Amino acid sequence: MFGELNLARLKGFEKLTSIDNARSTFLKKLKLEKLQSVQIPTSMALGRVTAENVVAENDLPPFDRSAVDGYAVKAKSTFEASQFNPRTLKLTKNNKLGENEAREIWTGNPLPKGADAVVMLEYTKTRQNKIEVWTPVTPSKNVSKKGEDVKKGDIAIRSGTRLKPHHVGLLAALGKMHVRVVKKPKVALLSTGNELVELGRKPELSQVVDANRLILSCMCQELGAEPLDLGIAKDNLNEIDAKIHEGIGKADILLTTGGTSIGYTDVVPAAVNQIETPGVIVHGIAMRPGMPTALAVLCGKPVILLSGNPVAAMIGFEVFARPLILKLLGIKYEPRPMLEAELTQKVPSALGRRVFLRVQVFKREDKFFAEPVRIKGAGIISTMTKANGYVIVPEDREGLDEGESVTVHLFDKIGEAQHV
Amino acid sequence: MFGELNLARLKGFEKLTSIDNARSTFLKKLKLEKLQSVQIPTSMALGRVTAENVVAENDLPPFDRSAVDGYAVKAKSTFEASQFNPRTLKLTKNNKLGENEAREIWTGNPLPKGADAVVMLEYTKTRQNKIEVWTPVTPSKNVSKKGEDVKKGDIAIRSGTRLKPHHVGLLAALGKMHVRVVKKPKVALLSTGNELVELGRKPELSQVVDANRLILSCMCQELGAEPLDLGIAKDNLNEIDAKIHEGIGKADILLTTGGTSIGYTDVVPAAVNQIETPGVIVHGIAMRPGMPTALAVLCGKPVILLSGNPVAAMIGFEVFARPLILKLLGIKYEPRPMLEAELTQKVPSALGRRVFLRVQVFKREDKFFAEPVRIKGAGIISTMTKANGYVIVPEDREGLDEGESVTVHLFDKIGEAQHV
Repeated sequence: MFGELNLARLKGFEKLTSIDNARSTFLKKLKLEKLQSVQIPTSMALGRVTAENVVAENDLPPFDRSAVDGYAVKAKSTFEASQFNPRTLKLTKNNKLGENEAREIWTGNPLPKGADAVVMLEYTKTRQNKIEVWTPVTPSKNVSKKGEDVKKGDIAIRSGTRLKPHHVGLLAALGKMHVRVVKKPKVALLSTGNELVELGRKPELSQVVDANRLILSCMCQELGAEPLDLGIAKDNLNEIDAKIHEGIGKADILLTTGGTSIGYTDVVPAAVNQIETPGVIVHGIAMRPGMPTALAVLCGKPVILLSGNPVAAMIGFEVFARPLILKLLGIKYEPRPMLEAELTQKVPSALGRRVFLRVQVFKREDKFFAEPVRIKGAGIISTMTKANGYVIVPEDREGLDEGESVTVHLFDKIGEAQHV
Repeated sequence: MFGELNLARLKGFEKLTSIDNARSTFLKKLKLEKLQSVQIPTSMALGRVTAENVVAENDLPPFDRSAVDGYAVKAKSTFEASQFNPRTLKLTKNNKLGENEAREIWTGNPLPKGADAVVMLEYTKTRQNKIEVWTPVTPSKNVSKKGEDVKKGDIAIRSGTRLKPHHVGLLAALGKMHVRVVKKPKVALLSTGNELVELGRKPELSQVVDANRLILSCMCQELGAEPLDLGIAKDNLNEIDAKIHEGIGKADILLTTGGTSIGYTDVVPAAVNQIETPGVIVHGIAMRPGMPTALAVLCGKPVILLSGNPVAAMIGFEVFARPLILKLLGIKYEPRPMLEAELTQKVPSALGRRVFLRVQVFKREDKFFAEPVRIKGAGIISTMTKANGYVIVPEDREGLDEGESVTVHLFDKIGEAQHV
């Protein structure tokens, strides 16, 4: 019954490739080169990715130290202390502690020899050159043991770790002034389309300002990649060809937007195939938005031909470029924040396509809800600015039900009981 | 029965203030000045916060345009088309479309006059200067209507929005070369302690490298604040006093670490109170870690005296400094990513204290689990590097149960079925 229509569709894409097959075909054809590493000051390392294991050259803490303000003691001197029968200990300033002796100690101070515990100031009372101890302490009580945080020779931070504030702090505590990180992958960005003008130029009738490069540039920056701007190319084979050559020469990944539909303007795939055959290895993906996305390999480097529609370009980046950038950085797994939410309304979908449904997640009475943002139009940027995450509708579902529990991948913060 | 012990505890903090009371007392005493704004290029705006509503000066899309590659038509010319009885339309290149006419159109092109819908290329067949249409389209089908994304005069982005890639894209699409953002709040950072040395200097016995300033500096950067480094001060009233003066003069917020316990070294609160009375308005908070945290106001500006223990300092920052920085930026609500997870083991807690339990969240078989990281030691940085989030144990709970569902506040990415 649908023979004719399918034939008609064939005029578009011979067949749509599933995302999973597209990814694996792509990865097999690519010759990804390991990025070089660079030594940078620890103070500049936030957000960078370690290129090697960071090994502790000394114990942390470097000595047994007090975790509180109080009195260093031999624990056994306090065993019989209680709130009814305080033990009296003799205050000393010696570097070596004897039985029934105590010495003032501050948080972070090394324990004097002979001491094995600290009584908190609050559980003591001073009486001239003596103190009363009102609570027993066990050995090691209130003591941070040498090497308890990190042991000399231990791997403190693994290779492939994106450095967060606490990692940078650990590097500092270990005395590491420098850290070896992966160089930022370079991602060249090219927009194509006769209708596009640069931001700052006033568009004439039938022209629009190019937003795609700036969006993708920001997405690269968020991941710790370095965007390279190739500008806008007209829908002209030679112009696009020259830009692609430039991009492949300079960058680790090349992203183009526009000119990928099987229409009158599928000039970008043609330009790619003119450079190397077969350049384009997948064209037409069973996803929505982003169906006209194409994947190509030139000189072993990945070239991702994204839709000219901003939202489709963002989703295409998410699905194909993001994992590659992370791979180049040496990061094994870095999903966006995810949460489970209850879908507020039924959503239709297309069997056989993976659909990326934009939703607004909000919290109400300690429960998370996901409200679908109007789906229409992969060109409608406000469907992204009104959303804060997306839900994946798998290929084998015709839609999602109202009240269904869904996993949301967050790309912006969660709102408080707000409505779309 | 605990009279004596409580008396002893009084020697520490007269009383512990709850976090909620501490916050509201603090906010009442502060005279937070609105930060100035600055106009910056849109291309530099990622992560900045809008200082005013961004109003669209034109419609987006600026004209009715095609959302697909295909043929512009009058919808009613196609109403009787079907896969069995295609309608034949005459191809034209005119700028005005008549009945039973069609004109080639690319994605993004403006609709010719008279056209109100687009038939996708896939549902047509060309026959010389005619096309066969195999499917009916309704008016507006495959058309992005003028102003459908954003209407002229609409608020496209609200004041107080942290700009993500899609916001920056929307600014570009609207032709905004510049955007007015809030100036970065300045946060002065001072570490205190005789035991501290700067990163890069070799610590002698009983010395440690200061990690706190670098950690807090990174936390500021993550929030879009500008850290100002005041260095390290010895536990000396005059030295600290001078640094605090410097910080208050330069910055919007001053954070100190160390020297806040009611011990021998509570020199920072003393220095603050020497400058203004009462400088310190809350000292001793019913939280763990971070109990010795103090809140002070100097010249109407917030001064937060954090613990010298790195983990306690981080949690103190999270609880008191983070909300202030967001408030200064004009952001109403920006929680960390949160998720619900199942606690893998029972955790004891202290009634009357709010406990910030570090956990490692991982996903196994589509379910999130939170595994508590060894709690001991607010000085143990690796309890943060091994964790990726924290769970709040409220004041009225003595602990959490194994298998209990908890909300995790994430400060790092989620791992895949990994164990602590």
